[in-house]
Amino acid sequence: MTVAVYPGGFDPVTNGHLDIVSRAAALFDDVIVAVTINVSKEPLFSAEERVAMIRESFEGVPQLTVETLDGLLAQYAQDKQATAIVRGLRAPSDFEYELKMAQMNRHLNERLETVFLAAEADGSYVSSSLVREVARLGGDVSALVPPHVHARLLDRFSS
Amino acid sequence: MTVAVYPGGFDPVTNGHLDIVSRAAALFDDVIVAVTINVSKEPLFSAEERVAMIRESFEGVPQLTVETLDGLLAQYAQDKQATAIVRGLRAPSDFEYELKMAQMNRHLNERLETVFLAAEADGSYVSSSLVREVARLGGDVSALVPPHVHARLLDRFSS
Amino acid sequence: MTVAVYPGGFDPVTNGHLDIVSRAAALFDDVIVAVTINVSKEPLFSAEERVAMIRESFEGVPQLTVETLDGLLAQYAQDKQATAIVRGLRAPSDFEYELKMAQMNRHLNERLETVFLAAEADGSYVSSSLVREVARLGGDVSALVPPHVHARLLDRFSS
Amino acid sequence: MTVAVYPGGFDPVTNGHLDIVSRAAALFDDVIVAVTINVSKEPLFSAEERVAMIRESFEGVPQLTVETLDGLLAQYAQDKQATAIVRGLRAPSDFEYELKMAQMNRHLNERLETVFLAAEADGSYVSSSLVREVARLGGDVSALVPPHVHARLLDRFSS
Amino acid sequence: MTVAVYPGGFDPVTNGHLDIVSRAAALFDDVIVAVTINVSKEPLFSAEERVAMIRESFEGVPQLTVETLDGLLAQYAQDKQATAIVRGLRAPSDFEYELKMAQMNRHLNERLETVFLAAEADGSYVSSSLVREVARLGGDVSALVPPHVHARLLDRFSS
Amino acid sequence: MTVAVYPGGFDPVTNGHLDIVSRAAALFDDVIVAVTINVSKEPLFSAEERVAMIRESFEGVPQLTVETLDGLLAQYAQDKQATAIVRGLRAPSDFEYELKMAQMNRHLNERLETVFLAAEADGSYVSSSLVREVARLGGDVSALVPPHVHARLLDRFSS
Repeated sequence: MTVAVYPGGFDPVTNGHLDIVSRAAALFDDVIVAVTINVSKEPLFSAEERVAMIRESFEGVPQLTVETLDGLLAQYAQDKQATAIVRGLRAPSDFEYELKMAQMNRHLNERLETVFLAAEADGSYVSSSLVREVARLGGDVSALVPPHVHARLLDRFSS
Repeated sequence: MTVAVYPGGFDPVTNGHLDIVSRAAALFDDVIVAVTINVSKEPLFSAEERVAMIRESFEGVPQLTVETLDGLLAQYAQDKQATAIVRGLRAPSDFEYELKMAQMNRHLNERLETVFLAAEADGSYVSSSLVREVARLGGDVSALVPPHVHARLLDRFSS
Repeated sequence: MTVAVYPGGFDPVTNGHLDIVSRAAALFDDVIVAVTINVSKEPLFSAEERVAMIRESFEGVPQLTVETLDGLLAQYAQDKQATAIVRGLRAPSDFEYELKMAQMNRHLNERLETVFLAAEADGSYVSSSLVREVARLGGDVSALVPPHVHARLLDRFSS
Repeated sequence: MTVAVYPGGFDPVTNGHLDIVSRAAALFDDVIVAVTINVSKEPLFSAEERVAMIRESFEGVPQLTVETLDGLLAQYAQDKQATAIVRGLRAPSDFEYELKMAQMNRHLNERLETVFLAAEADGSYVSSSLVREVARLGGDVSALVPPHVHARLLDRFSS
Repeated sequence: MTVAVYPGGFDPVTNGHLDIVSRAAALFDDVIVAVTINVSKEPLFSAEERVAMIRESFEGVPQLTVETLDGLLAQYAQDKQATAIVRGLRAPSDFEYELKMAQMNRHLNERLETVFLAAEADGSYVSSSLVREVARLGGDVSALVPPHVHARLLDRFSS
Repeated sequence: MTVAVYPGGFDPVTNGHLDIVSRAAALFDDVIVAVTINVSKEPLFSAEERVAMIRESFEGVPQLTVETLDGLLAQYAQDKQATAIVRGLRAPSDFEYELKMAQMNRHLNERLETVFLAAEADGSYVSSSLVREVARLGGDVSALVPPHVHARLLDRFSS
């Protein structure tokens, strides 16, 4: 049985992230979405809100768990008996950073494999930070995030 | 049960390829190494030799099959009921090419996922073509390929 | 009045190329699609066939001309009183090559500007060479090229 | 008639930016240089100073307007009836970021085309941030910016 | 006689940096390791601590000097009669940034050559910032830095 | 005393190559320009012509030798008691290839350092293959190569 961890900031979760989760769930027995608490100095949504938005997207999917992660990913994976980390790749520069992290994580825990999935071509330009920026300026991001996330973004930036 | 296909030219197989095979075998239930027949106009080793060299490296590993592949990978994977393609990534430019192939393969077969594993940092400079070139010029590649492959390279270039 | 040249091999033209042509036609007064005669040792389609396939896609668009190009692009542009070269960009490595060509073309003709348009995210994995390869192996490329190009590909590879 | 917007921080404008403006003015009927108000936490020059420095460089060029931009670029372009965004590209990593922005802008406004021009090879290493950094440390940047910008940099860092 | 400067933040020095220093010392007559004072808003170690950690690693190597650098590198090199700057390269994106810096430094001081050495494949994923991050979260970095640096990291993060 | 080898195809030598040679000669005691015999299936100029064109550019420079190289570079460097290989870098994708070669060469000969110099920004788009292509089509490359090389190119393509 293979347990996979999909770590990220998810501030907020996008349709691209949800696509990666679904595809990981098709490949592995258990998938844990691990929401890193400190994504930046000031996240737009709290870790709890970010967890809730992902859970709402996957209600009723049994092999999926959503949790916060506050510590070393390599250690967390070991505690969860996970042997795979899942990451989505959209562009070559993503890969450079991710390759370094994957090699460091294997250095720290040699049984821990990082598995990269290619983002859909269609939404390869969508990132959480770009979604936040566009939504903040009043642009329409309704096609890039799930409806309940869109509602929260509108709510956050309406004041 | 997840069946994964690891396609490549393997002309010849290197230690880096073997590392990817072992890691894929730890993640998936069945791994099929698929040796593409026409890697270039004139491969150094025939497809049969390339298959034999990989088999010799994995004698007694039950969930591993080594075959030749002559046709469309997306179709082959479907015939084998495989849902994952495995590819190793060494450098950002690898990724650009591989991303295109992964997206094309999903276009052709939407249940077919490409899973990328990061090459070991240690041997990230080793490719089959560089091994062939160095061996052809008399350089020592014994640390970069399995012993039986090294023997075949010496044999091939001794005449 | 700005005349733009869109040069390429177009062996065969893809939906991505057609998208670039339409967008160039919205930006410039006249667009000349210039089909380079020698794209490689052995093109799949002759230059005349490649010209015909593009013309068929744009019947009745007045500001568009399709021609063959056999010579230096910088000279050709000058002969046509074109001041812009149009190129589509799909990935960073495209850009490296294209940047060199753009700078060389300005060296040869300093009034000649290269204008890059970003490929649609959706089909960013589609290139003529990949379309040829997939079609050759029997894969379905009907969503990636216009119908009349698809018919010619089927015809070419049916024998 | 094509109206093009050239957005940027221009903190301060460099000779490379001016080159892009001139080349855009040769391609399009009207060019609006749009100075984004918040380039970073603390710009070196205020938006008004940045606008003034660009205007001073193009006195008497009728088809050029310089304004501040505080909001969503896709909306701003629509308000101005602009159908093209102009961006200069210096290096592959520029392109990755710019490709994402171009695809997002087309998502937000499908009639809005981003047009990339290649930076001159000669000054491809010059960016506003590097100019600021070198000037701050007392290095001579007089060949990289217009004289009136150089004077302002000397003034800013002399105290 | 060639004097080379190896500038960097070294917050803290890693085994990769030490490897570059040793290799530079084999190529050039004198090597000055120049520790830039302001690597970021808040370095983990003071400039003095960073200098001390490098000195401790190279006790008794006569052609090596370790100093702090607070100013323009091109000027500093001239003051020291250095004609070479040494930089290690690990990945393509490193190179893009470093190329810009090298070209700027030649613009400022045309006798100043930047010499790039390739990082060892083995530790190409190790950077000071990643070491700090992993150590902060309690991960074991003892194989990535010299023992005396490891001791200081443990000390810094134990409180 | 440091002996450096600068290997390449030089088919033909460009101003960019000559710049690298001059800069290497300022850094190292002896520089050997090593012209690889088989640059491709069919070089434009024979190895002897390529050697002659480089020699003609550096008449009277005592610490410079120009030779052909037919074999393994790592072995050749050892035979010449060279401890440095010099390579020019123009773009990130150059670097990826060169990094692999540098790491392989250190694997084969651990005392052999590859030293990368950044190409001048000004001519970063100039490569031998592009010069050949433009000259073949009748474009003016007189500013990109030395006069005696230009004469030979005109001669070669006039028939």
